[in-house]
Amino acid sequence: MNDTVKEVKHPFAELLGFEVASRGEGQCTTTLAISPHHLNPNGVVHGAVLYALADTGMGGALTSLLAPDQICSTIEIKINYFRPGTSGSLSCKTRVVHKGARTAAMDSEIFDSESRLIARATGTFMILARPA
Amino acid sequence: MNDTVKEVKHPFAELLGFEVASRGEGQCTTTLAISPHHLNPNGVVHGAVLYALADTGMGGALTSLLAPDQICSTIEIKINYFRPGTSGSLSCKTRVVHKGARTAAMDSEIFDSESRLIARATGTFMILARPA
Amino acid sequence: MNDTVKEVKHPFAELLGFEVASRGEGQCTTTLAISPHHLNPNGVVHGAVLYALADTGMGGALTSLLAPDQICSTIEIKINYFRPGTSGSLSCKTRVVHKGARTAAMDSEIFDSESRLIARATGTFMILARPA
Amino acid sequence: MNDTVKEVKHPFAELLGFEVASRGEGQCTTTLAISPHHLNPNGVVHGAVLYALADTGMGGALTSLLAPDQICSTIEIKINYFRPGTSGSLSCKTRVVHKGARTAAMDSEIFDSESRLIARATGTFMILARPA
Repeated sequence: MNDTVKEVKHPFAELLGFEVASRGEGQCTTTLAISPHHLNPNGVVHGAVLYALADTGMGGALTSLLAPDQICSTIEIKINYFRPGTSGSLSCKTRVVHKGARTAAMDSEIFDSESRLIARATGTFMILARPA
Repeated sequence: MNDTVKEVKHPFAELLGFEVASRGEGQCTTTLAISPHHLNPNGVVHGAVLYALADTGMGGALTSLLAPDQICSTIEIKINYFRPGTSGSLSCKTRVVHKGARTAAMDSEIFDSESRLIARATGTFMILARPA
Repeated sequence: MNDTVKEVKHPFAELLGFEVASRGEGQCTTTLAISPHHLNPNGVVHGAVLYALADTGMGGALTSLLAPDQICSTIEIKINYFRPGTSGSLSCKTRVVHKGARTAAMDSEIFDSESRLIARATGTFMILARPA
Repeated sequence: MNDTVKEVKHPFAELLGFEVASRGEGQCTTTLAISPHHLNPNGVVHGAVLYALADTGMGGALTSLLAPDQICSTIEIKINYFRPGTSGSLSCKTRVVHKGARTAAMDSEIFDSESRLIARATGTFMILARPA
């Protein structure tokens, strides 16, 4: 397989059923098809599902800009919810807003299958040397 | 069953395997036993798992203070990560910091099985009239 | 004077010396010329000065979309800092990202006089009926 | 003067009129007497004034734990507003919640003169080696 994204095992992505659809040049798109086990007691997609798309998308966008000897980890993420997700598929588009020597900031926008913005997240990641 | 918490169906909680261990008087504790499917490609618990404990805990803490004709929804949550979660069980303790007429603010602290603080979240929820 | 923006007395804007340069259709630009009294002990612009540009810009952007009988207030704002501000003038461009019935979300980007992004903020405001 | 806090020149603190009342062991209290020039057009204390108390308090709390060859800078702060500040004095109590090797997280609570919680902030600072 040429797809470097899928070569990496990601148990939590498998559990939730989300995918890294594309990644490169500081951008990343993650997608998920809503299924009944994503729902909270109110019958809408649990906020953590949308959050998972953003967190993973931020990591994907940032690592596309890192050197082979660098890794990153999440410092913090804030997510705002605008509309509930109920059915269909979700798409999360992330871009790196600023990349410094030690930290980077990302922005994620999550859209429902009607292309409506349903949530938005901003986050800060630490850039670290890969352990030997 | 007398446990009103578990009477509510929560498909996403079942998928992830987290539980509302206690709830009342503006407080809520959610717990999760780490299993392999919670891990990200780096072998540590995915940030969205910790986030799920906080988001659900905030809802549990706030609803314990609401009137029967009120519901709530997440406006925004920010989560900070301090240490990776790797094994054992996680416990998230949430309390309502401020409850106004229209919004409420909550604070969640997530501990690993050695009682170390591994993440912390603050969030704002909207308080709404329950639809008839 | 025709300038409705300046007709409103804003003591804190006068103290800091910032201005609402333009406002309308969900957007707002606030500006400030850096002077020595904006500096912190490290000789760079205090973070609260940048924050003031964002908070005021968010209010300006949102009120441009509100009905005459509506007002708004800040629920929360998160701001990220990327570079220090040291001299020259600062410009903060804010836009409304989502406007619902009860809340709205805004995004502010702050640039230095070389058009470099030095800070970024996202915030949530409550939309309220104007008191009679 | 024995007061090491005031030995450092802080032009912005002088402009706003806030003070570091106490500082040590990972804690810091900043205070401000509300005056007319702190007000926004709605006649309440501008959000950036409360923010300034939190940002400065976080720096004060963290530096009390740093080695002489370390400095810090703000990565991000989120602040939530619960009640307007209108008159009297404000007190902001900050504590370090977590201190790692590279970053630290702080929590600030702002009280009005009736000891009501009017705002709350959480922030992340970078810990850096002091430039030679």
